Amino acid sequence: MDANKEVLFLHGGASTHFFQVPMNFLTKGTKAAYLDCGVWGTKAIKEAKIYGDVDVVASSKDKNYTYIPAGFHIPNDAAYFHYTTNNTIEGTQMHHIPDASVPLIADMSSDILSREMDFNKFAFIYAGAQKNIGAAGVNLVVADRSFLAKGNKGIPSMMDYTVHVENGSMLNTPPVFAIYVCMLTLRWLKKNGGIQAIESANNKKAALLYDTLDTNSIFTLPVEKKDRSLMNAVFTITDPSLEALFLKKCESESMIGIKGHRNVGGFRVSLYNALPLSSVQVITDLMNDFANQYGS
Amino acid sequence: MDANKEVLFLHGGASTHFFQVPMNFLTKGTKAAYLDCGVWGTKAIKEAKIYGDVDVVASSKDKNYTYIPAGFHIPNDAAYFHYTTNNTIEGTQMHHIPDASVPLIADMSSDILSREMDFNKFAFIYAGAQKNIGAAGVNLVVADRSFLAKGNKGIPSMMDYTVHVENGSMLNTPPVFAIYVCMLTLRWLKKNGGIQAIESANNKKAALLYDTLDTNSIFTLPVEKKDRSLMNAVFTITDPSLEALFLKKCESESMIGIKGHRNVGGFRVSLYNALPLSSVQVITDLMNDFANQYGS
Repeated sequence: MDANKEVLFLHGGASTHFFQVPMNFLTKGTKAAYLDCGVWGTKAIKEAKIYGDVDVVASSKDKNYTYIPAGFHIPNDAAYFHYTTNNTIEGTQMHHIPDASVPLIADMSSDILSREMDFNKFAFIYAGAQKNIGAAGVNLVVADRSFLAKGNKGIPSMMDYTVHVENGSMLNTPPVFAIYVCMLTLRWLKKNGGIQAIESANNKKAALLYDTLDTNSIFTLPVEKKDRSLMNAVFTITDPSLEALFLKKCESESMIGIKGHRNVGGFRVSLYNALPLSSVQVITDLMNDFANQYGS
Repeated sequence: MDANKEVLFLHGGASTHFFQVPMNFLTKGTKAAYLDCGVWGTKAIKEAKIYGDVDVVASSKDKNYTYIPAGFHIPNDAAYFHYTTNNTIEGTQMHHIPDASVPLIADMSSDILSREMDFNKFAFIYAGAQKNIGAAGVNLVVADRSFLAKGNKGIPSMMDYTVHVENGSMLNTPPVFAIYVCMLTLRWLKKNGGIQAIESANNKKAALLYDTLDTNSIFTLPVEKKDRSLMNAVFTITDPSLEALFLKKCESESMIGIKGHRNVGGFRVSLYNALPLSSVQVITDLMNDFANQYGS
């Protein structure tokens, strides 16, 4: 990461940035460009509209957000381009960094530190801590000093990123415990080989899970193959009448919380950094057994 | 507390409310009335001015905030009247609830749950958790449902108190650990006799400390007697050349963090709910010894 970057640890989750980003960077006379790839992007767009003109450059709403749009055009006169790198609810992930001639802003809440990413390509990154960084109650910001300097003036101190930089993330009493857990998590990550090692582990976990789902026709995967998330696998049972049974089998083996979000139904298995390959092995074994017993 | 109240646990400290309160309640065509009694009130006033007209009804800035103004007039046409119940840095406290014909808003961060207060007299109360409620990273709001309903519309979801009410303080992932510590602290308070018992203990602690300071002329108390804070006692050594020595003596007995804020100098001893009378006994013993040895 180049020397022009500022790193902040701020109160709260990622959602504050949905309005804080346009409050700071949607400067007078400009517009903001957004990619609409799911629930989080849609929320960010809604909040940005309070502060000015928003150009939604592409959306995958037409197919219930089961893919990541490609070939979209980012206008040269936008104040910034905003996208969500990974969509937890829909199970999609952007596997490349979009080309943009305007400052790039990303909500990386659910896949930050899961893979190598060139942070230098981004003017502003934000991420809630509670997936791969630490505990809920704090969020991370990585931002270009020069981009921050161009932000709006006269906004509330607590919302002004430059004020937080001046105060070293201690403008008010920070969420000390949540930050402490981030430190422990980052040390754990470093000790275990850093991003490169965790990316390799994450790839293995996702390959095992998706291979199992693909080879058993009892499961259906709604997401386009090229856009599948390595963090959140979304699937349904091809015969919906078997869903309750599958959920029960998982619960009987202490696998809880895999029910999909009500927007998409079915199931969601999350593979965040903290989950070991052995846990994926347990659920894929169960999936194979279930397919053998109830599959056609 | 009457049934018309909503209780919220939100991300962050009290400072967010400095702008969030006027963002919600400084409605078009109105003005807000503020009492200026110290650093926190001054900050709240600064942020409110971003959102509209502010009428500072009284200030104790003329005497470096060493007293609480009395006899001020709160205009009947103000959207609300805002004050800070206890001033941590200056060591002052408002010992009564002001009469106001407009909705009353209080920042109770540093003395909430330390004494009996009629919450029903307030339209809106906020308090950072890290003094008497729990751990840093969460804050408490107690608000009138009817007052909330009259707030501004079209503001960011994360800043709209009514949206947090609708979502039961879980609009996004809450700061779970900080909230858990609040639960433990509130259970501890309840088990130990509740507010009535802690108020009695706090009165004893403050009486012991202030009596010791008053009886030893080696110490000087800048705050007007009637306005002294029961949570934060501020004092100086009458002969400033002895200050470093006093600080050293305290540190040698493991009493740290008693250096006063740079705005006021001297010393500050805080007496929050968690501090037992025995700790006050230790510092007052040291004060008496110090006065005997170095006093005139």
